[in-house]
Amino acid sequence: MSASEGNGSYGKKAFKRSKSHFADRITADGRDGWPVEAGRYRLVVSRACPWASRAVISRRLLGLEDALSMAVTDPVQDDRSWRFTLDPGGRDPVLGIRYLAEAYEAREPGHPGGVSVPAVVDVPSGRLVTNDYQQLTLDLATEWRDLHREGAPDLYPEGSRDEIDEVMEEVYEDVNNGVYRAGFATGQEEYAAAYEGVFRRLELLSQRLADRRYLVGDSITEADIRLFTTLVRFDAVYHGHFKCNRRKLTEDRVLWAYARDLYQTPGFGDTVDFDHVKRHYYQVHEGINPTRIVPLGPDLSGWLTPHGREELGGRPFGDGSPPGPVREGEEVPAAGRP
Amino acid sequence: MSASEGNGSYGKKAFKRSKSHFADRITADGRDGWPVEAGRYRLVVSRACPWASRAVISRRLLGLEDALSMAVTDPVQDDRSWRFTLDPGGRDPVLGIRYLAEAYEAREPGHPGGVSVPAVVDVPSGRLVTNDYQQLTLDLATEWRDLHREGAPDLYPEGSRDEIDEVMEEVYEDVNNGVYRAGFATGQEEYAAAYEGVFRRLELLSQRLADRRYLVGDSITEADIRLFTTLVRFDAVYHGHFKCNRRKLTEDRVLWAYARDLYQTPGFGDTVDFDHVKRHYYQVHEGINPTRIVPLGPDLSGWLTPHGREELGGRPFGDGSPPGPVREGEEVPAAGRP
Repeated sequence: MSASEGNGSYGKKAFKRSKSHFADRITADGRDGWPVEAGRYRLVVSRACPWASRAVISRRLLGLEDALSMAVTDPVQDDRSWRFTLDPGGRDPVLGIRYLAEAYEAREPGHPGGVSVPAVVDVPSGRLVTNDYQQLTLDLATEWRDLHREGAPDLYPEGSRDEIDEVMEEVYEDVNNGVYRAGFATGQEEYAAAYEGVFRRLELLSQRLADRRYLVGDSITEADIRLFTTLVRFDAVYHGHFKCNRRKLTEDRVLWAYARDLYQTPGFGDTVDFDHVKRHYYQVHEGINPTRIVPLGPDLSGWLTPHGREELGGRPFGDGSPPGPVREGEEVPAAGRP
Repeated sequence: MSASEGNGSYGKKAFKRSKSHFADRITADGRDGWPVEAGRYRLVVSRACPWASRAVISRRLLGLEDALSMAVTDPVQDDRSWRFTLDPGGRDPVLGIRYLAEAYEAREPGHPGGVSVPAVVDVPSGRLVTNDYQQLTLDLATEWRDLHREGAPDLYPEGSRDEIDEVMEEVYEDVNNGVYRAGFATGQEEYAAAYEGVFRRLELLSQRLADRRYLVGDSITEADIRLFTTLVRFDAVYHGHFKCNRRKLTEDRVLWAYARDLYQTPGFGDTVDFDHVKRHYYQVHEGINPTRIVPLGPDLSGWLTPHGREELGGRPFGDGSPPGPVREGEEVPAAGRP
């Protein structure tokens, strides 16, 4: 997703994130007409986008790389939105299209919404299936279970779903989307309300995480993935670009250690491309950054420093195991990694 | 001074700070026609402006409050530049003018430059005398000596002037003005060069100050004043607004302690109005911050925490003594002070 594109809008009123227009689900039983099937679908993401990055991380943790291929867009959209300019000839090699919008058009000509990532495209027909970023990762964790790797963690365990949902709802409202409401505010009051919400929630999360390694239970869940995708972008873009500058993530001892712990866990940091993140926000949002200059900071070298969170116990992957190495061709540059 | 006004210009070329147009000097011997005289001149400043703040600090340290009165402008200029909207009726009570531009016009009708602070105005004639921010504080320290308070420090001691000048030149180029070159850059390369200069110099200054309390000798000099006025604004505006975000001042142990030491020294922190600072930069530079929203951060509470620099020795005021309390009517809000 990109708030500057379709799924978010801002004008005289407060920033509003739109609901996903295409909310079909890919399920084990195929009840929406889209059965889970290895090799049939293509996940289109931007590594810049926190909403898409949830799916990138889930796919890695669950070992879905073979079952669900992935297309990575240019972090900087043009006036036709997300594009495959990073690929040879400027076309996605599997879908054969230059713009993600083409898959949207194939699904619904003249569709009214914007073009957002994450998007899942049906490869045979070239049609968009879903851009429902809230449901997508839950379905990867549950409906795609037959295709998970051996040792895949249970990211949405049945016994904890109420608690996970509650935490995710608070994190979504105040943090994931809160930083956007702060950044795209058009007035001081709207900004201030969002800013206060961001830091009030971060403070509560910091307290919660002071003596427990993960948000819910003692293993990584979907809730951690969703908090991580905002935290990892915090100092690089939200602190300055979105004016969420009470303090940096690095100034909150607990959250900074929690974020580093996840970053250093296979499947998290190895999906993060800080260059994509920074170029996207600073070059696309001309209403916030008219010069389109991308800041050289912050210093990212701290991401690989010891975090000490092992002392809190916890089993990162529960009864499972860490994912293997990043798939060839899907590596990210070593920003923050030596 | 304000880089958005006259003394700085930016466009297709790199940001250039103009030379002061009115460079008459007020001297003990009155050789430019402006003799030092108690009560004759009025210092016009903005507390937002680092260049003007040098003079505010010097005036306090030297005890020139009675000899040289001070007018504080609204931190947010309008299209006629600096204005006295903070005063009753919107007029400076001594000069009787609404805009500083009126004193510039009285000096030279249709003058070609911009209107900048600090400015010294001859009260009887209402004419601007000088806006030469580089020379002004040196003259306060030396030419105004007969009017200094008892115990005033020697801010520009003869035996150390070469060293002070050298340090100030480096600090000016890379730090005082470097942050502006970064912030007003119109292209990535120009920005990057300024940014690298800022942090290279700060690193050298951090090394220099690791085992010495002040920049030159063992007492406060003009060099410290000039470094302080940039450091105190660093996290509040330069880090985010000017994209000087490799690290915050608070992340450099030595410079942060050095800046806190000065902030807590009478004559420094008691002249700083963070509200003026933030509103000026974020509301005036619409080319950088089109929404004019003023960030609520950073948390300023750290400015009064212990700095431990007394252990390095040094005599802040040399053979002199600290200035007394802030003059009634010249107090600043307690931002960062409990």
